[in-house]
Amino acid sequence: MKNFEIFQYIFFKWTMALLIGLCTGLIGFCNNIGVENIAGFKFLQTINYVRQEKYVKGFTYFAGCNLLLATVTAALCAYIAPAAAGSGIPEVKAYLNGVDAHSILAPSTLFVKIIGSILGVAAGFVVGKEGPMVHTGACIASLLGQGGSRKYHLTWKWLTYFKNDRDRRDLITCGAAAGVAAAFRAPVGGVLFALEEVASWWRSALLWRTFFTTAVVAVVLRSLIGFCRHGNCGLFGEGGLIMFDVNHATTKWSALDLVTLAILGVIGGVLGSLYNYLVDKVLRTYNIINKKGPMFKVLLVITISLLTSCCSYGLPWFAPCTPCPPESGNECPSIGRSGNYKNFNCQDGHYNDLASLMFTTNDDAIRNLFNSNSKNDFHLSTLYAFFGAMYCLGIITYGIAIPSGLFIPVILAGASYGRLIGTLMGQFCNLDAGLFAILGAASFLGGTMRMTVSLCVILLELTNDLLMLPLVMIVLLISKSVADNFNEGVYDQIVKMKGLPFMEIHAEPYMRHLAANDVVTGPLVSFSSVERVGIIIHALRATGHNGFPIIDEPPFTDAPELCGLALRSHLLVLLKAKKFTKQQHLMRSDIKKSFKAIDFAKPGSGKGIKIEDLIIKDEEMNMYVDLHPITNTSPYTVVETMSLAKVAVLFRDLGLRHLCVVPKTPGRPPIVGVLTRHDFTPEHVLGLYPHLKHILK
Amino acid sequence: MKNFEIFQYIFFKWTMALLIGLCTGLIGFCNNIGVENIAGFKFLQTINYVRQEKYVKGFTYFAGCNLLLATVTAALCAYIAPAAAGSGIPEVKAYLNGVDAHSILAPSTLFVKIIGSILGVAAGFVVGKEGPMVHTGACIASLLGQGGSRKYHLTWKWLTYFKNDRDRRDLITCGAAAGVAAAFRAPVGGVLFALEEVASWWRSALLWRTFFTTAVVAVVLRSLIGFCRHGNCGLFGEGGLIMFDVNHATTKWSALDLVTLAILGVIGGVLGSLYNYLVDKVLRTYNIINKKGPMFKVLLVITISLLTSCCSYGLPWFAPCTPCPPESGNECPSIGRSGNYKNFNCQDGHYNDLASLMFTTNDDAIRNLFNSNSKNDFHLSTLYAFFGAMYCLGIITYGIAIPSGLFIPVILAGASYGRLIGTLMGQFCNLDAGLFAILGAASFLGGTMRMTVSLCVILLELTNDLLMLPLVMIVLLISKSVADNFNEGVYDQIVKMKGLPFMEIHAEPYMRHLAANDVVTGPLVSFSSVERVGIIIHALRATGHNGFPIIDEPPFTDAPELCGLALRSHLLVLLKAKKFTKQQHLMRSDIKKSFKAIDFAKPGSGKGIKIEDLIIKDEEMNMYVDLHPITNTSPYTVVETMSLAKVAVLFRDLGLRHLCVVPKTPGRPPIVGVLTRHDFTPEHVLGLYPHLKHILK
Repeated sequence: MKNFEIFQYIFFKWTMALLIGLCTGLIGFCNNIGVENIAGFKFLQTINYVRQEKYVKGFTYFAGCNLLLATVTAALCAYIAPAAAGSGIPEVKAYLNGVDAHSILAPSTLFVKIIGSILGVAAGFVVGKEGPMVHTGACIASLLGQGGSRKYHLTWKWLTYFKNDRDRRDLITCGAAAGVAAAFRAPVGGVLFALEEVASWWRSALLWRTFFTTAVVAVVLRSLIGFCRHGNCGLFGEGGLIMFDVNHATTKWSALDLVTLAILGVIGGVLGSLYNYLVDKVLRTYNIINKKGPMFKVLLVITISLLTSCCSYGLPWFAPCTPCPPESGNECPSIGRSGNYKNFNCQDGHYNDLASLMFTTNDDAIRNLFNSNSKNDFHLSTLYAFFGAMYCLGIITYGIAIPSGLFIPVILAGASYGRLIGTLMGQFCNLDAGLFAILGAASFLGGTMRMTVSLCVILLELTNDLLMLPLVMIVLLISKSVADNFNEGVYDQIVKMKGLPFMEIHAEPYMRHLAANDVVTGPLVSFSSVERVGIIIHALRATGHNGFPIIDEPPFTDAPELCGLALRSHLLVLLKAKKFTKQQHLMRSDIKKSFKAIDFAKPGSGKGIKIEDLIIKDEEMNMYVDLHPITNTSPYTVVETMSLAKVAVLFRDLGLRHLCVVPKTPGRPPIVGVLTRHDFTPEHVLGLYPHLKHILK
Repeated sequence: MKNFEIFQYIFFKWTMALLIGLCTGLIGFCNNIGVENIAGFKFLQTINYVRQEKYVKGFTYFAGCNLLLATVTAALCAYIAPAAAGSGIPEVKAYLNGVDAHSILAPSTLFVKIIGSILGVAAGFVVGKEGPMVHTGACIASLLGQGGSRKYHLTWKWLTYFKNDRDRRDLITCGAAAGVAAAFRAPVGGVLFALEEVASWWRSALLWRTFFTTAVVAVVLRSLIGFCRHGNCGLFGEGGLIMFDVNHATTKWSALDLVTLAILGVIGGVLGSLYNYLVDKVLRTYNIINKKGPMFKVLLVITISLLTSCCSYGLPWFAPCTPCPPESGNECPSIGRSGNYKNFNCQDGHYNDLASLMFTTNDDAIRNLFNSNSKNDFHLSTLYAFFGAMYCLGIITYGIAIPSGLFIPVILAGASYGRLIGTLMGQFCNLDAGLFAILGAASFLGGTMRMTVSLCVILLELTNDLLMLPLVMIVLLISKSVADNFNEGVYDQIVKMKGLPFMEIHAEPYMRHLAANDVVTGPLVSFSSVERVGIIIHALRATGHNGFPIIDEPPFTDAPELCGLALRSHLLVLLKAKKFTKQQHLMRSDIKKSFKAIDFAKPGSGKGIKIEDLIIKDEEMNMYVDLHPITNTSPYTVVETMSLAKVAVLFRDLGLRHLCVVPKTPGRPPIVGVLTRHDFTPEHVLGLYPHLKHILK
């Protein structure tokens, strides 16, 4: 590459990061405005009916709105882009691990994810927007990186630089980080989230580019929020760059507090892992229902929507009305939408504390729980009811056909759990109930997601309270440690349930008892370095392999030896160009001249040449083609007797897709087989050697 | 390993993390107290002389104190532990990259580093304690991990679990993170620093353990600071967990401000890279002086100490006295040590603003610069003078024989530069001068250290001002980008200058033009799998190799084939046990029984068996020993024709120390050579192929 090309490449990389940041920030903001306006309007109207004592009409209106929004979302997800349902984080995680699953990052998925997330959250489901935002960011990055979508006639030529796995992965990592940054307005948290949870390979250079992307997101959000301060965005207008700005004036703590926190963490860890367990069970049940067809998906969404509406509207009626505290002044009862003191069904001067939590957007409920103005804002019974409702609704909502983030449900349940403990411990503890809510949220997040550093920073950026950092750290560590004894993190669980061949960073213990050639299976399909066209075509049709070993054979060498590895996509490009010869001879330089590097670049998803696209005449089938120009002559190889555990580490650490296994003793064919990702999956290995199942971790 | 052993191992790992956190936190706190008390006493006494108008006596006292402290530090560094001089971060970085340089982590180094850092900072040098703290943390981790020091008869048996490179590296990474956390009271920043700057390999599990360590540090510091609040620690008593708590009430910024910041970042980047350039030049000069002997080292320190004393004491005399602003009340002039308004030589009711910066500890100077109470606390001339002094003193101080961190000098110069720009831009800008000081510090840090995310988080935790995060990000990114055009980060520069064979994460471009066998050199020394003792002894004496290929030969196999790789340390253990046989035959199981895994564990630095320790009789020299039990039969191998760039990636990513190169064609000896770290260094490769030098990056 010339100097200029390198400069152009670097310039485009940074431009892409900038664009990803801009787009994701913008979409995140639109999402915010959309939800706040739709949900706000819905709540205002319903409250009006309640104030006029038209209770049934109020419920009908409320449930009707929710149902309409939910049905539209479900229809979009079920009929247009099934890949847009759910969180999206497991899929992005698998993609960055090297799993190119179908349509995960397609334009239709992006569209449904954006719209569906707005409508789904506005429909009052106990779901968040952070998972969908991560997925959205990744989709944007993918679309930008592959130069638009050919299917929808949206292509641009100047952005076709990123034609290899690594550049794509880098972009999508940036996109995922930007998604978190946009959802939580947490730029550093976004970077750490991408690092800790999403990315499988990480380089320092990537840290730096990801950071730039999230900085752009932060600036975009900041500017737009500034613009909205002046009342230009309808009902949106609250909140600065910090989502839940709760400066707990003094954060003093004693040894006794630490004991309380330890207990909080332990229980949080247990409840968190139970949450994972239940989500898994529910998800498996839902999968059975969802497989029956799109109509069933929609029906399931409708059922859950009605149930959620009943809870949100119904439960507050059981809560008693509380007189407004005198020091609250104008704040109580709140007339508008947000605020700690919802009037709901109470007479003037009173408020319904359960309505303040249930009958509002999820963001506002969290803000109310994190609030630390007064210890007695919420009755114990209210917190019990809210915690129970959120825990159960969160579990039964994930898995229905809407874009649904897991963070917010977990934070909701965790914050109410924390506030509950805080209220119970009231007189024994120096920490206020709002801080307890934050710590409870931390314990639940630690118990379900099992991230530590990124959650800590996200919580820090969410609440702007640096002094509670050590407390959050302790709670997170305890709850994660406890939960790790029971099951694995919720995203790993979902990845596994979806059957994606995720490569873990560690080799499994049973691999130490096997060698590379123990798992090499299937008939090996290899080509001679100057091969007959017919043989190649036949092999490409008959197998699904993506990599083929190329063997140098006499007359070109004395004995057969491994020349290298050729990829299916490159073979197809070569065959399409039809540089065939009648005789079996070398024509390396000839061929090299007629191609450019870009011809062999990895195409976007669904854009490559397919074997069906090739039209080869019969006489051409007997001609020869020289495979040297497309052969990777330095493939990574391992000796057949090498420990499978070490092979797995090599495969994973270097991010390979094919690994050649060569024989140890001379005098045999120069290659034993090719290992791919699937050969390392527990299903494959333990399928071959079931007796190794008992070997513990 | 049995279940119990695994549990024990994990338990010890976490215990170690806890201990490292406790010790590092404690030492960090002692360092703080020590510096504040020594320096505070010195300043108070000197001020007393000045107030009594005994100016010469004041200077003599001041310079004398500094000189005494400096000389003690220099003597310790020069005579006891030369490895303790300097920052220590480059050495730790190299160690974590796999360079086991001599005595970097020895107990004597630890001792001198702790004492020297306290005395050096108290002596008024423009140095910080963060580099030394990182080194201290790493030393503690190393000592704890290898179960004490045999040399000083401090050993404990139960901590001898961590006998391999990876566990040691993990512990030392935790130690380095704990060091940053203790120095800056920045737990998250510490983790990120370890991740971004120090560690060469990183796993998610490590993130989590590092985080635990820094959380412990934070809790330790918090408790101790709480204890000191009640006046139990002499002159120490200021400051909470946040070092420079500067909540800039409103942080609003406009587009014009962003332009100003861009300019600030560009200039900061240029000045930062110039700083690196000058540090490099000065360091090379100092190295020549320091090589002449310990006496010269001490003399150099004395010279710099006198120069620094002259600046600190002399420069404030040129500054005019300013009347105290009426709103400052009791604060001005400050009677005690800290505060923005030093009285120094002025009459009552006036203050000397340059003295507030120069004639105080570095931490207080930074606090004063970051302070945003009033825009006009500092005259322009004061800031010019202070910036110039700090920039020059910082450059000439690094490299003398004292433990010296680079962060604080860079922050000092950067903060004064930022405050200068802020004061100059005063009327055009919404941002206050204190915020400008922070941003200036960020620009200088970005320009010299070239870290982004970790610096950002450290600055955030130092100042507790979350809203300025996007601004800091932008400035850091700009200054790093600008500075990257001129030279590399200061730590990389020092690593290179010290001649440590650091493996970069990227393969160098010229490596693409070479194959593995192009760089394999030297006569290959290999052993037969059942080898004569004399041959092994001779080879171990004659070469310095640490890994030897083992070849299976007839009669054990049909043709010679590669059995694996044996390490020098394992050969020595085997030879010491004297399991020799008269005849050349296998005795694998026999030998295996007589050793435990722990016998072959990697010894602590300087603790292994040496070839000189072996006493082999003459008749034993002709006996045979079976090397199979100590042979690693799954070494990583590459084919000789493989591209050197790919080989380098394999070597680096898997963290290897030896890589076997095998022949491509059969019928030759089964191994071509062994590649080690040194074979990938530019010196070696470009020494062999000088014509590749012109290939650009």
